[in-house]
Amino acid sequence: MTLKPTNPAYADEVRQSFAKQTIMTLIGGELTRVEPGVVEITLPYRADLTQQDGYVHAGIVTTIGDSACGYAAYSLMPPASEVLAVEFKVNLLRPAKGEIFVARAEVIKPGRTLTVVRADVFATSGDEERKLVATMQGTMMRLPRHKND
Amino acid sequence: MTLKPTNPAYADEVRQSFAKQTIMTLIGGELTRVEPGVVEITLPYRADLTQQDGYVHAGIVTTIGDSACGYAAYSLMPPASEVLAVEFKVNLLRPAKGEIFVARAEVIKPGRTLTVVRADVFATSGDEERKLVATMQGTMMRLPRHKND
Amino acid sequence: MTLKPTNPAYADEVRQSFAKQTIMTLIGGELTRVEPGVVEITLPYRADLTQQDGYVHAGIVTTIGDSACGYAAYSLMPPASEVLAVEFKVNLLRPAKGEIFVARAEVIKPGRTLTVVRADVFATSGDEERKLVATMQGTMMRLPRHKND
Amino acid sequence: MTLKPTNPAYADEVRQSFAKQTIMTLIGGELTRVEPGVVEITLPYRADLTQQDGYVHAGIVTTIGDSACGYAAYSLMPPASEVLAVEFKVNLLRPAKGEIFVARAEVIKPGRTLTVVRADVFATSGDEERKLVATMQGTMMRLPRHKND
Repeated sequence: MTLKPTNPAYADEVRQSFAKQTIMTLIGGELTRVEPGVVEITLPYRADLTQQDGYVHAGIVTTIGDSACGYAAYSLMPPASEVLAVEFKVNLLRPAKGEIFVARAEVIKPGRTLTVVRADVFATSGDEERKLVATMQGTMMRLPRHKND
Repeated sequence: MTLKPTNPAYADEVRQSFAKQTIMTLIGGELTRVEPGVVEITLPYRADLTQQDGYVHAGIVTTIGDSACGYAAYSLMPPASEVLAVEFKVNLLRPAKGEIFVARAEVIKPGRTLTVVRADVFATSGDEERKLVATMQGTMMRLPRHKND
Repeated sequence: MTLKPTNPAYADEVRQSFAKQTIMTLIGGELTRVEPGVVEITLPYRADLTQQDGYVHAGIVTTIGDSACGYAAYSLMPPASEVLAVEFKVNLLRPAKGEIFVARAEVIKPGRTLTVVRADVFATSGDEERKLVATMQGTMMRLPRHKND
Repeated sequence: MTLKPTNPAYADEVRQSFAKQTIMTLIGGELTRVEPGVVEITLPYRADLTQQDGYVHAGIVTTIGDSACGYAAYSLMPPASEVLAVEFKVNLLRPAKGEIFVARAEVIKPGRTLTVVRADVFATSGDEERKLVATMQGTMMRLPRHKND
């Protein structure tokens, strides 16, 4: 599916919004790809992001997946939009162990109000092949800017 | 529904496992209630936990919801168990704004292998009534201890 | 939570819309409760509704759950609305065996555009206590009437 | 991903089990593809399968999606297994209008106990391009045969 942006400045807008997500600074998430309908966020492993067994917590895997989904949807929205997550579902497929985690989100169905997005979260360690650790399916909503509080 | 623990030391085991979740130290989550089948985690608002509008990021809301679900399930498991999340679905009902967030998880259906749990995440601000900001429905799995890697 | 209808004719509108769901005639589903934000659909067991083990198929459990959710949302919508399901998630808790199945849906969070609803599906057999066989969490959307094609 | 069956008779077993799903006879669903980890079910439109607007009911879309997911998982299970659905989540992307509906399920992550599967449901009308009307992400569970009641 070829998706066309309706906002020529979509990539800048995604980057500016992402820069305001203070949680990404706290956990070390970086925006590493922005294309129409596709966004990737990369997170290096850190020992302070884990659950009881030393794997990255499912909620942190979800954090990068959700932001990637939101911005993948946002990249296709017209100017003066806001995006928020309506819902998402995450299947945890393997323990989130690895050195680098990448959440790759892709729009399945764009819409005027609701956009459905899928994100896969991969882990890589050394020169091993990347592994799919989680997959996410969610709904993102467009709101006119400055009207969502 | 009255749920009976099968591990008399369930509360200590939940606390010991929670203490190993380094992510909780990073974000400031605290275990504030442990009963058979019911667990609460409390998270004070912090400006470094937010998305682009200054609300707590949906992934952090999910982080406390998921841990609450996992430990609610774990509280009913027999000794020498490990718990892991299989999947969860989260509906975001309102922007996560407030001073204090509480994720309250309750087991809906315990099982030998799989346990289904629901968590509600509430926000409170000053002396306002608490508001439901998210609700989560997930599946947690029991594994024999030390055999899940 | 006390929910107030915004359409005084809500119960009639739910019944009229339900009567158009031809699938309900095919499977034998009946609308057995309509209150503001709460709808129940009842389905007697039939041998032609089953999966390979003779239990009612999860998709049929979902069919009554989804319609109950949709109409619970619809009961709170203003006049001249249409309702459609955006998404739902179902956890199957026990095999759907029994004589009578009741899907009870309740609105968790009404909204101008999106309404979040939960449905529990119970099975009863003879004079046994009812059993929860599935639980569902979904998002329903309001559209202005005659504008959704 | 190349998936290998562990049961040489997988295709026959899928077909035999499908033949016992009485609901498929009722609604007119047919098993039209069985490969290791991939199953398709085809459903022609019928006027008695609809919701209030004349589109195929989301629960029926789910019925073929769920069976496709279950059998995609089952196709990879060892002999003497039973399969049951643990949970699924469905996003409804477009009204289910069309002449023929095909649910195509594909295993994302096979496992000894749990298998995660995705299904897409497509609609076709005349010589138009097929449209994705729903996408589903679910967890299927293996049980030893004859021990699931």
